Amino acid sequence: MATLKARNILITGANRGLGLELVRQLVEIPYPNRQIFACCRDPDGPKSKVLQELAKKHPSVIKMIRLDVTDSGSIKEAAERVSSLLGKGGLNLLVNNSGVAANGTIQSSSADDMLSNFNTNVVGSFRVIKEFLPCLRISAKASGEQGMSCNKAAVINMSSIAASMTHAPQIYAFLPAVSYKVSKAGLNMLTICAAYEFKPDEILFTALHPGWARTDMGGQNATLDVKESIEGVIRVMSGLTEEQHGAYVDYTGKTLPW
Amino acid sequence: MATLKARNILITGANRGLGLELVRQLVEIPYPNRQIFACCRDPDGPKSKVLQELAKKHPSVIKMIRLDVTDSGSIKEAAERVSSLLGKGGLNLLVNNSGVAANGTIQSSSADDMLSNFNTNVVGSFRVIKEFLPCLRISAKASGEQGMSCNKAAVINMSSIAASMTHAPQIYAFLPAVSYKVSKAGLNMLTICAAYEFKPDEILFTALHPGWARTDMGGQNATLDVKESIEGVIRVMSGLTEEQHGAYVDYTGKTLPW
Ligand SMILES: NC(=O)c1ccc[n+]([C@@H]2O[C@H](COP(=O)([O-])OP(=O)(O)OC[C@H]3O[C@@H](n4cnc5c(N)ncnc54)[C@H](OP(=O)(O)O)[C@@H]3O)[C@@H](O)[C@H]2O)c1
Ligand SMILES: NC(=O)c1ccc[n+]([C@@H]2O[C@H](COP(=O)([O-])OP(=O)(O)OC[C@H]3O[C@@H](n4cnc5c(N)ncnc54)[C@H](OP(=O)(O)O)[C@@H]3O)[C@@H](O)[C@H]2O)c1
Repeated sequence: MATLKARNILITGANRGLGLELVRQLVEIPYPNRQIFACCRDPDGPKSKVLQELAKKHPSVIKMIRLDVTDSGSIKEAAERVSSLLGKGGLNLLVNNSGVAANGTIQSSSADDMLSNFNTNVVGSFRVIKEFLPCLRISAKASGEQGMSCNKAAVINMSSIAASMTHAPQIYAFLPAVSYKVSKAGLNMLTICAAYEFKPDEILFTALHPGWARTDMGGQNATLDVKESIEGVIRVMSGLTEEQHGAYVDYTGKTLPW
Repeated sequence: MATLKARNILITGANRGLGLELVRQLVEIPYPNRQIFACCRDPDGPKSKVLQELAKKHPSVIKMIRLDVTDSGSIKEAAERVSSLLGKGGLNLLVNNSGVAANGTIQSSSADDMLSNFNTNVVGSFRVIKEFLPCLRISAKASGEQGMSCNKAAVINMSSIAASMTHAPQIYAFLPAVSYKVSKAGLNMLTICAAYEFKPDEILFTALHPGWARTDMGGQNATLDVKESIEGVIRVMSGLTEEQHGAYVDYTGKTLPW
């Protein structure tokens, strides 16, 4: 099995749920001079307590960064802060993990639900990609490696099986969350466009469904604990190549139908 | 060939482009007591001049209605006006045709482009569906017909080949319009969710790509004139059954890959 050799990694929404577990597991994988930029909306607040403690234990690896994906000013500041910590190095792996999910059918949802899910889940990722592009390009250029990988330069967009048009009727029956589903389908399309646009830069883009995991969002009936989900996510990220550029895969590595 | 027997038809964005041509062709199809609710943002303004003249020629058929899909107040007023014109009858066919298209790659587009295309193309259709649902339910219930059709009760969402994830890389190469593509993919997902949610009501929902047509949006290099495109659209709408419920088809009737 390939191991993740990305040196510099940024994760949004890293203070709880899957983002926090990703930081937790990544910090245990030994890699020289690794920096993990654990981004969250309120790094000093009570919602980030667990991440604060983890960062205290691994001060040279984990850097907590304030970043709200709906606030372009905060993303710009985060990018400046991260750039200065990277020095001449680039960013190898960006995980657009932060997300929100409004429950509700068309009848019970509002236009605001639609707009706010879209703003966080799609435009949030869009803003972050644009702002960190220079950092990703640096690592892509600096890498001696052929092809594409998460070790070189990559963006992983946390998609969902709920984004699949093919599976949509069954999933809507089970999870009637129209705003969320529409936003994640949009995120898949953004991933495909990015894959096309940044192919010459050799930056890998993949949409990844982490499985149904027990987090605040996934709920307690989910089939996976966060440990299993993120073990899978890391395994899959480690093995991604240009074959999965612009693709939609799950935490077991299986390609999902659009 | 089936002919369109929808009695009461509403079209958004009916003052120019494909929406206007749809009104133009529908008014020529004889049908007793047909009402066409030709909606536009500014029915009295200069951008609606051609529609005004057409409506003057067919005053009993064409009713011009003010409707801006981004303004829920205007949709509510439009629904009240249409309801009063319908009397005890229902709405048989709603065509969510209005749309905008920002050109631009991820690098050249802004968060505002993403949000405004989504607001008009997806949330606009969402708002209109919600507001006209009672009118659609009336006609679905009143109909003696089995199954689903545009004659009974249907919503056609004007999608685009640009919404197809499968075709996305080729299309992005040719039409690098990330905001538009993301929004139309979202509209396809909305169509699938609506098809599931309103199946018990027997309201048909289909996403329809009208072909690449010479309009302000399609540009002058497009392969179809509006006449050909809308002839196809009407032919396809006339023949839709529950087989295309929640489907994605083009103006020739072909099912498109998600
Ligand atoms: N759990 C599942 O079963 C599942 C399945 C499929 C896909 N996913 C996807 O996986 C990702 C993580 O999900 P999760 O289950 O870990 O969700 P979660 O437990 O609800 O955590 C969501 C994270 O996103 C952050 N966030 C929300 N809005 C933000 C904003 N505007 N700016 C920055 N961060 C923001 C939250 O921060 P705050 O604490 O500040 O709110 C939190 O850290 C999401 O994209 C989700 O859609 C999850
Ligand atoms: N033409 C093509 O090749 C093509 C291909 C695939 C899909 N489509 C889709 O087909 C539909 C019609 O396209 P078209 O080519 O006829 O476009 P168009 O010539 O640009 O006309 C767009 C229409 O939408 C209306 N509109 C825009 N924003 C609106 C709002 N907020 N509220 C109400 N109406 C609004 C415009 O009204 P104003 O005059 O007030 O701006 C106009 O009537 C669109 O959904 C488009 O995405 C077109």
